Formats: sequence, C-alpha cells, structure tokens
Amino acid sequence: MNGISHLMRPQSVAVIGASADPSKTAGRPVAYLKKHGFTGTVYPVNPRYEAIDGLKCYPDVASLPAAPDVGIVLLGAERAHLAVGELAKRGARAAIVLASGYAETGAQGAQRQAQLLEAAGSMRLLGPNTIGLVNLTDGITLSASGALEADGLLAGSIGVVSQSGGILGALLSRAAASGIGLSKLVSTSNEADLDMADFIDYLVDDDATSVIALYMEAVRHPQRFRAAALRARQAGKPVVAFKIGRSESGARSAVSHTGALAGSDRMYDALFRQTGVIRAGTFADLLDLPNALSVGRHPAGKRVAILTSTGGAGTLVADSLGVAGFETPPPDETTAARLRALQTGDHAVLDRNPIDVTLAGLQPELLRGAIRTLLDSPGYDAVAVIVGSSGLAMPDLMANAIRDSLPGTNKPVVAYVSPHAPAITRLLNREGVPAFTSPESATSAIEAMWRYGETLRQGRDGQAPLPRVEPDALDLLSGSLDEAQAKALFARFGVPSVREVVVGSAKEAEAAASTLGDKVVLKLLSNTITHKSDVGGVAVGVPASSAGARLNRMRDDVETATGTPVQAFLVQEMVTGGVELILGLHRDPLGTAVLLGMGGVTAELIKDTSMRMLDPESGLSREDALALIRELKTFPLLDGFRGRPRADIDALASAIVAFARMAAAAGSRLLEAEINPIFVLPDGQGVRAADGVAVIG
Amino acid sequence: MNGISHLMRPQSVAVIGASADPSKTAGRPVAYLKKHGFTGTVYPVNPRYEAIDGLKCYPDVASLPAAPDVGIVLLGAERAHLAVGELAKRGARAAIVLASGYAETGAQGAQRQAQLLEAAGSMRLLGPNTIGLVNLTDGITLSASGALEADGLLAGSIGVVSQSGGILGALLSRAAASGIGLSKLVSTSNEADLDMADFIDYLVDDDATSVIALYMEAVRHPQRFRAAALRARQAGKPVVAFKIGRSESGARSAVSHTGALAGSDRMYDALFRQTGVIRAGTFADLLDLPNALSVGRHPAGKRVAILTSTGGAGTLVADSLGVAGFETPPPDETTAARLRALQTGDHAVLDRNPIDVTLAGLQPELLRGAIRTLLDSPGYDAVAVIVGSSGLAMPDLMANAIRDSLPGTNKPVVAYVSPHAPAITRLLNREGVPAFTSPESATSAIEAMWRYGETLRQGRDGQAPLPRVEPDALDLLSGSLDEAQAKALFARFGVPSVREVVVGSAKEAEAAASTLGDKVVLKLLSNTITHKSDVGGVAVGVPASSAGARLNRMRDDVETATGTPVQAFLVQEMVTGGVELILGLHRDPLGTAVLLGMGGVTAELIKDTSMRMLDPESGLSREDALALIRELKTFPLLDGFRGRPRADIDALASAIVAFARMAAAAGSRLLEAEINPIFVLPDGQGVRAADGVAVIG
Repeated sequence: MNGISHLMRPQSVAVIGASADPSKTAGRPVAYLKKHGFTGTVYPVNPRYEAIDGLKCYPDVASLPAAPDVGIVLLGAERAHLAVGELAKRGARAAIVLASGYAETGAQGAQRQAQLLEAAGSMRLLGPNTIGLVNLTDGITLSASGALEADGLLAGSIGVVSQSGGILGALLSRAAASGIGLSKLVSTSNEADLDMADFIDYLVDDDATSVIALYMEAVRHPQRFRAAALRARQAGKPVVAFKIGRSESGARSAVSHTGALAGSDRMYDALFRQTGVIRAGTFADLLDLPNALSVGRHPAGKRVAILTSTGGAGTLVADSLGVAGFETPPPDETTAARLRALQTGDHAVLDRNPIDVTLAGLQPELLRGAIRTLLDSPGYDAVAVIVGSSGLAMPDLMANAIRDSLPGTNKPVVAYVSPHAPAITRLLNREGVPAFTSPESATSAIEAMWRYGETLRQGRDGQAPLPRVEPDALDLLSGSLDEAQAKALFARFGVPSVREVVVGSAKEAEAAASTLGDKVVLKLLSNTITHKSDVGGVAVGVPASSAGARLNRMRDDVETATGTPVQAFLVQEMVTGGVELILGLHRDPLGTAVLLGMGGVTAELIKDTSMRMLDPESGLSREDALALIRELKTFPLLDGFRGRPRADIDALASAIVAFARMAAAAGSRLLEAEINPIFVLPDGQGVRAADGVAVIG
Repeated sequence: MNGISHLMRPQSVAVIGASADPSKTAGRPVAYLKKHGFTGTVYPVNPRYEAIDGLKCYPDVASLPAAPDVGIVLLGAERAHLAVGELAKRGARAAIVLASGYAETGAQGAQRQAQLLEAAGSMRLLGPNTIGLVNLTDGITLSASGALEADGLLAGSIGVVSQSGGILGALLSRAAASGIGLSKLVSTSNEADLDMADFIDYLVDDDATSVIALYMEAVRHPQRFRAAALRARQAGKPVVAFKIGRSESGARSAVSHTGALAGSDRMYDALFRQTGVIRAGTFADLLDLPNALSVGRHPAGKRVAILTSTGGAGTLVADSLGVAGFETPPPDETTAARLRALQTGDHAVLDRNPIDVTLAGLQPELLRGAIRTLLDSPGYDAVAVIVGSSGLAMPDLMANAIRDSLPGTNKPVVAYVSPHAPAITRLLNREGVPAFTSPESATSAIEAMWRYGETLRQGRDGQAPLPRVEPDALDLLSGSLDEAQAKALFARFGVPSVREVVVGSAKEAEAAASTLGDKVVLKLLSNTITHKSDVGGVAVGVPASSAGARLNRMRDDVETATGTPVQAFLVQEMVTGGVELILGLHRDPLGTAVLLGMGGVTAELIKDTSMRMLDPESGLSREDALALIRELKTFPLLDGFRGRPRADIDALASAIVAFARMAAAAGSRLLEAEINPIFVLPDGQGVRAADGVAVIG
C-alpha cells in the first residue's frame, strides 16, 4: 500500500485540534467517523480535553500510542504546519489539512503553503483548504463536510474528485437524495502535494469504482492529468468532468479560489477530447452522466423508444433527444402488433413514438410487458420510460416493473420522472435504472452512454501510441526567422511550400519569375519587418515579365516606409483555386496546441478555429489532425459544399501531422510558428504553405 | 362574468360519470374538490350510484336541481358529446371534457371532436383530452390530475396555461415541492373551443396573477395569441413560454399529441421576440423564471455580487453568469471596508467576487449585514446568495436573514442552494427570495429579470402601433412576374432597384448600356425561366461597348438551351463595393415572416438568416427591421468589421420596412417574393435590389 491507499483506507486516524463540541467544525470529524461506522482507531488530539465522545484525547501527536495512518489537521493556517511536521516525524502516512489561508489568498499564503509542504516531507498531504475525503465503500469519513450530517449516504460505484470542498458536500448530499451511490469522494483543493491526477490513478485501480466524476477549476499538471485520464480510458472507466472557467469571470473566480493558473477553456476542450473525458454541460450532469454510465450499458445506435403514460412529458424528452441528434422512430409493425396485444387502452395510438400507453401508468404488469416489447424490437437502441403522476401511488411496483425488464438485453433503459417524485427516483436509481428529473439531463445521459459506447467500439486503447519524435537541436537557427527560413524549416518536417526563389536584384527576380509561371508573387524578405503589406512589401499577380521593375519599385517603397535598406526579396509561384487556412501553434498554461483556422473574413468573424493539444513527445496523430479539420464550422467548404471541388484533406492532415512533429521536435525552443495562409488545393493536388513565421529561442 | 370566468370560478360543479371509487380516475374530481376546499355545490352524476362521498348523486344532467356553472365530463369519447349536449341544454356555462380519442388520434377522432363542439353550442368547452384546471387562488380543483393527491399546494401569483395535462400535473407538484406559489393552472390540450390565448387574456385580467407561464406545443391561432401576449406586456405581466418542437422529432411528437399544425420553431422565436414573450431554455426554467419574475424586481444593470460561504458553489454561479454576459466585479473600497468591519473571518479575502465570507454560513446576523452591504453598494445591480451546507442546520434563521435584507431596495436578491436542501429552498421561495438548485437556472432567472426590466425601461407599450397599410389590389398583376415587373413592384413600395432598361435587340442594348456605365450586367428577361444562369441567361461585367454582341450570343445560348425564342433582355448597371444579402418572405402555418439572409457561401453554410413575423395589417416596424439586421451572425460585416466601410444599415432597414409594407398590402395574394441579391452600399449610398422574384395568386 502506498501513501494514497493508506489515506483512502486508514486503520487509524488522528484528529489534531478536535473539539468536544460537535456543533463546531472541529467537532465534526470525530463525530462523523463514529456516525458513519469507521471501525478503525480514532485518536482525538487536543491538550484541552481528557476525552471526546468517549474516546481518550491526547495532548499532542508525540503522545499517541502508535503512528496513525492519517492525521486530520483542524488547526488554523498559523499552526497547521507544526502539526503536519509532528505527524511526519511520528511516521504517519498522510495528513489532511482543512485550514484555508494558503495559496488561494495571495503571496503570503503561498509562503505558508510552501512551509506546510516542507513540514510534510515524504508524508503525503491532502489540501490545504480541503474539506477532506469520504470513502463510502468502506464507511470511512475523513471530513468536516456538513453534508455528512445526513443519514442514508449510499455506497455505489461513482468516484468523485473535486477541487472544491463545498462542491464535494453538494454532490454528496444531492447523490444521497437521488439514490445515486458513490464510492469515494476527495476534495483536493489547493493540491500542495496530492492532486487530481493522483486520485484518478487511485480510482482507476479501485475495484469499487466504475466511473470517475471530476469537479475541476484548473489542472495544475496537464501531463499527469493526461496520463491518468488515458489510464482510465484503457481501464474502461468513463471520466466525466465539469470544468469551471468557460467565462472570464468564472476563470478569474476559479483561479482566486484555489490559487491555480488556469488555461484557456478551449484548451481544456481539446485536452478532454484527446483523452476521452466526457465534459458535463451543466452542474446537474456531473452526477447524472456518471449515474447513467455506471450501469455499463451503451446504445449501439441513436434510435430511442419513448414509452409514456403522459403525453406532454414524452414530448419533452423526444424534443430534447431530437435537438441532440437522436431519432425517435415509430414502432415497426411487429412491435406495434405486440404492443396492441398487451391491450394498452382503447385509444392508444401505437403508430408513433413517444408510445403513449396511458394504462401502463396504472398497471405495472402492462408497463413491464411494453418495455420488454420495445427492448426486443430491432428498431430501437435504447428505451426511455416516462414516469407520470399516475404511478406515484405505487412507487415500488412501478420501479420494480421497470427493473424487471432489464435482464436479457444490454440495451439501456432510463427513466424520466415527470412530477416531483423523489421516492420513485431514488428507487429507480438504486435498482440500476438511471432516473432523471429534467428532460435535458435524460438526453445528455443517453448521449454520454452512446458516446462512451463509440469509444469502446473504437477499442479501449484508442489509437496506437505514436512514435517518439527525436528532439531536434535546431542548432543553427535562432531568433525570428525570415519567411524563407521558416518555410524551409517547415518543409524539412514535411510541410510543402510554394515554389520560391530568394533574389537580391531585379535581374535575378526576372530570371526566377520566368520559371514560376505567368504571374508571380513578389515579397520583401526580412526577419525584422513582420507586417510586410503595411510597408508595401507584398505584390500579388505580378506578370513574370515585369517582376524586375516591380522589385525596384518595392525596394523604393519599403525603404521609404522603413528608412532601412532592403537586401532580399522572394519570388513565389502564385497559387489559385485553393482554400486558404491558417495553421499555427497556441501556447497556453495548459500546454501547447496546434491551431487550425479557416481563412477569410467571415470565418474570422465567426472564430472558425479548432485546437488539439500537442503531445510533447510525439506531436499529433493523424486521427487528431483529421478531427481538427472536421471540427471547423465551415468544414463543408473543404468537402464539396454546393458543388465545389473537394479539397485535398488527406494532404492537409499530413501537413498538420508534419507541423506538429516539428513542434514536438523543437520543444520549448520554438516560441512561435504559424503558416498563414496554407493553400489546400483540390483533391490530389496537395497543400502549399504560402507564408510562414517562426521564432526560435 | 363571461363563460371563462364561470369556468375558472364556478359556484356549482356537476361531475358527469363520477365514480365512487377514489382510486379510479373518475373518482378523483369529486374527492379533490372536497380535499382542496371547494365551498360551492358539487353534483355527482352517475345513474349507478345514489350518493358519492356523502353527496347526492344524480342519474343524469336533466335531473340536477339547477344548471351547474361547470360540468366535468368523465365519460369516454363515444359518449362525452351526449353529456356535453345535455349540459348545454340545461344552461351550464362551461364543460370540461377529459376523454382522449379526438383530433389527436386521426381523422375519425377529429370528426368526434367536431361533434363535441357542435353539441356544446354557445356553452364554452375546455378540452377534450384535458386534465382540467386548478384554481389555487380560490381553492377550486376541476381536475383529475394525480398531482392533486399532494397536500400543501401553494397559492401564489404564477398563472399556468399548458397544452398538456401531464405537464400541468408535473408543474403543480414541482412548484409545491419548491415552495413556488401558483394562481391558476389550465390544461387546454386539444383546444376545440377555448385556447391558450383565451386563458392568457383571462390571466392578464386576474388580480391574483402577476406572471404567466406557458407550456406550448403549437399555437393554433397566431393572431389571437399575439394580441393576448401584447396585452400581457401592456399590463406589465411577464409571459414565459416553454415551446416544444425545437427538433423535428419533437415537432412531430407535439403535432401527434395534440393534433395541431406546428409552425417552424424559428417562427416561434420571431413571434416571441416581437411580443416580448420570454422563452424558457429548459423545462426547469418554466417554473424558475416565472418564480424570479413574480417578485417584480429587475436589475438595472448587469453587475452581480455573489455572496458565498462555500467557494466552489459561488464559482459555479460566477462562471454561469459570465457565460451569459453578466459581470461579477470585485467590491469597491467602501464596500470592502464595510464588509471587513463585519468581521467575516480571519482569512476572508474581500477584494474579489464571489465574496467569500465563510462565517456568514454559520451566523445569520453576519449574513444579513453582508447582504445589506452589497445591496447598498452602487457597484452592484443584484445580489446572489449562495446557501451552503453550513446553514442547513438552521434553515429558518438563514432564510429569514436573507429575507430581512430585502426592504429598502428594489435590487433583486436570489439564492443558489448548493446542497440538497429542499426545506431552505421552500422557505426562501415563500419569503420572496427566488431560490434555485442549479447554477444555470439562477443565471437564466437573473437574465430574465434583467431582460424584463429592459422591456419596462423601454416603456410597457413597446413601440407605437404602426399605421395600417391599405390593401393594394395588385389588380393588374397576376402569376409569376418577370424580374423587371417584380422589382418595379418592390420599387413602388420604396425598395430601390439597380438602374436597368428592358431591351429587345442588340442595338437597344448598346444604347441602354452606354447610359449605365463602363460595364453592365446583361440578363434574359422571362417570367417562365426561373434559373436564368443555368441556361446561359446572365452575363456580368459586360463592357458597355460590346453589350449588343453579347446580347446576340445570349439569345443563341438561351434558345439552344430552352428551345424557346427569347423576346426581352435586361441591361443593368453593375453594382460593386456593396455587401450582398437576401430579403424575402417565408410562409409558415404560423403566419408570414420577412426573412433576411447574408449572402455568400460561408453565410449560407452557417445558415445566417433572421426572421420576423409580418403583421398582416402594418408590416414591420423600423425597430423590427433593425433587429433583423443586427441578429445576423455576420452583422459585423455590415458594421465596419476589420476596417471595412460601414454599410448603409439605415437604408437597408428602410428597404425591409418597405418590403414588409408591400407584403402586408398584397396580403394572401402575394404567394412568393424575394430579392436576391440586394446590395447594401457603403453608408449614405443606399441599397439596390439586383434581382427579384414575385408570384401573385
């Protein structure tokens, strides 16, 4: 057992600064350990008491009869490090520090946090500023969360890691109220030592956990998070994350709350997509999606039967599913005939979906038969059952009827509970039928189950690991490269460039132009002037025959504008008939991303870009490159929209992979890199980088 | 009192087909009337019983001692019309028919529905296929909804009209569970007679109702709905609608459920915007937004203070508010100093928002002081209070502390309840502090309050009524017009056209071209060939001097392609430097809309169009026209994006108003009308219709 295992499942717990008053925060942990059935040893530590709640109380850590596995430190920030130091010295495996007043408050607090970490030495540390952890699998509560006042906490298979203690409490109490079972909940908060990735790793190995739910404000160690998320994918354990910081004010608030440096929200999206993490769209989804995924059923397709005894609620779910791209086809003839044979009521209309069987709301036997019939139908991939007011009088019978229809199929069955009916919601969830109180959550859950099924169908391992890119010294290059050098660098890794010749004189320009076509592009070549157009340093569509004269004119214009003599020019072939895109790197606290953007003013206006995190060792996979391309809102412009020629998407993907390999090889020395534009020619004709920027540090 | 008033507040109720078994649906209405305190007379009618629940039971309607105000008909569809006929004959004011099996089931059911309506004669009819109505203001339940089993239904100021009976039940039980008070709930369902607009009208006049909530599947009488919604706006009563049919499957399901013809969802959006109806984005918002609006407080701006005793939950709300465009600025110095003076805890950091005052979660007095301080601050327009786990032990004290901070200000105070804590949620709602259990709903509610405040600030009456457009006979026009006729029609109403001349020969073309510029556009003129380009009938950028030769070539091309002789051509000035848009009419079951679309392939790809319903009497207001323009996703292309010249938006708005006046004047005879493209020139230079289609019936 390592430090985390001891932390999650201690045999003995010391509570430093325990109070005998259970109404105070410091009085809670000891009371909760007892209340929720901890069977190990509890050592209250407080020089002011002889005993707390019948337990002998020790004056200090040194006096404990044995080293505790875990110490919960309830002292304030001014003294917590002393207790942590004593615990480390005594041989404790881990300490939990609840006090706030650390990195989240500013520079002075950050110093206190460093002191705390130093005091811990090799002992593991959870917090500070944490509410602790709750292990429902084993009935161990190492927490002061007021949510533990509740009875009826339900052990289950969803593991929770939260960067906020308050959210841990909210999830704990909401799950209990909905009959959703949890395995472990950990609040990592300031993450001075143990962080989110550590606990994801733990939960991946934890037999009691089948799904992992994350409340996330900022990932402090992106590479470790990435590795842990990929391990979860390999283990077949879905990870659902609710990530704060979609708005600037949210990001600001998250940063100040935990003292972490936030990356941009779109980078998180990229990170999640690349690691198979499912992003919860609403806070409610952070419980509802794991709850659905914990059942382990995944629709093979997108056709959902909705069985209802109350018209309107079925329509709510049908509409919401439709918005999410699911289908609700009517029953096929065989299925309709079988439903009719069940005698579902005089005016039941069985040629449509939602399938309205009013009597099923009153007769559990009929309900069971109807669900079985729909599950048997080859026309449906999942069944959503609407629970109306009529079933409220007999929640057990209704819940059992739905549950009893489950065996013999792997198709998912979910329930939408239309009236306020917490008893039936709880029963259904406990019986393995994910139950939802909002049509939108029901839809998100079905979508998450479908999406995870897709991941499984693609193979748990995802794509094969990419070959490691050997770091490239780039020894001879440094500083801001000129356009020709930048494109040469890109070309070395496999990004094709427009044909071009560096020239110094009008005569050279004319000679070069004659080999590049009827019309050419003429550009100033400089590693200091970045906005060439602004100083008259770009001419497009220059007749090859007049390239020399044009060069002389450009030289005059640029020298007038900049006051600096010009040494070199570029003569380039002129590319026509392609689609213009931008390919570049985006640096972010979370890592480096490859950014692809559609060219043109409208695309710029609608911010039509996509991003993928660069793997620092291997760059990007071809799948990622294709996903980047397909995620563009205007992707159809590359794909034959309205009779346009289909663009060479394969070549673009290759160019993206090459660009990413270059970035991985160059590592942190490559400060900036961008190709704007890169022309994507019609299918089979490849791509051409037509301008390039690279800055090497 | 009219029929609806008697229906909503009867002195006497006959229940036709009442059962003595309260576990049956037919047993419920009599039982519920008694349970919920109806003080008028109840006449059970059923030949099989002498008495029901202590009330004398009558064999038939004819035997009743007096005409009842309302008859609730519980018979099946085969016999309900007989009872309705008897009630009408007996002099009842209204009947409620619960049976299904009418228009929602198909043609035969539609016939039954017509029979029912005929039987009712001048007596008003609610239903069929309805669950009835509930008047909580007066304790009158004319319904079989199982939701009435519940105790503790709460009278309040939100009136509900639902096109589904099941949804009525869901809202009733959910509102009671959340402590949200309702005034009246009506399920209109098939709307054979009384429809949604009738009840909106009733609720506008109902003193007990301050907000109206609608569950809507399809509006059957758009003009009546529009008038009722505008009356509500004038009365200062917000209307919130949850509308089904955002997806095709939802629309299909709604249509089959109530047998109504659905308009396109975007038309509803247009209708709602034009009448000030607030559209609920989620089903939960259908209660949460009215609940917030019922308090009658509206933030004057978008700056929200978040007061929290639990970090993570405050961040949830801040992030959600930020996504919705709200600001959460830190407290100003005075406010921060006042907060510090309250002694909110050792490490409370008061220079940021969410304002984290951990101790306030435990001390109601401190909570009240902090809220007052924030309400007093000129830097905030609203306060959101986060209720964490720490307050759960004393829900009354916490709820009262928040309530007590309300007097003396009109700024809204809302609460987000982080853990599962229904008791405190109910208390807060009852005390006039809208309380939410999802951060997204809290945000939607604040947004709705702000938006309604904007409406009020703009004046309750909205814009002045537009002058009525005199119908134009269009006598001389009929059938499909040719381009020149169409544009002449548009120009008659004030839509400027490109300069153009109709010609028949090469010579005429050259003469015309010489007056229209160096280069011209040459087009085939025909009222039968609609796709001119496809047959070689369009030439752009024709040098004026060669217009004759080009005409001859076009004549050959078109005659070869179509096999028909060509009589006429158009020579047009060539417009450059403008932005191309499309302006047209869209016909829909809901009415006729004016549609504006950005031109170009990218805009087409992203479906960049906006719509407004045409007022059949007056067309469109200038405000609506400007809104149409500003709603385009690529509106910045017209507004100087990236240094482009600002387009003549005023002239475009005038053209839209003119086009709409034409459509209103032409009425139903104008089957089709479209200008594609209309060029919008730089500011001050106007617009030009460059092509036009019109079909007159």
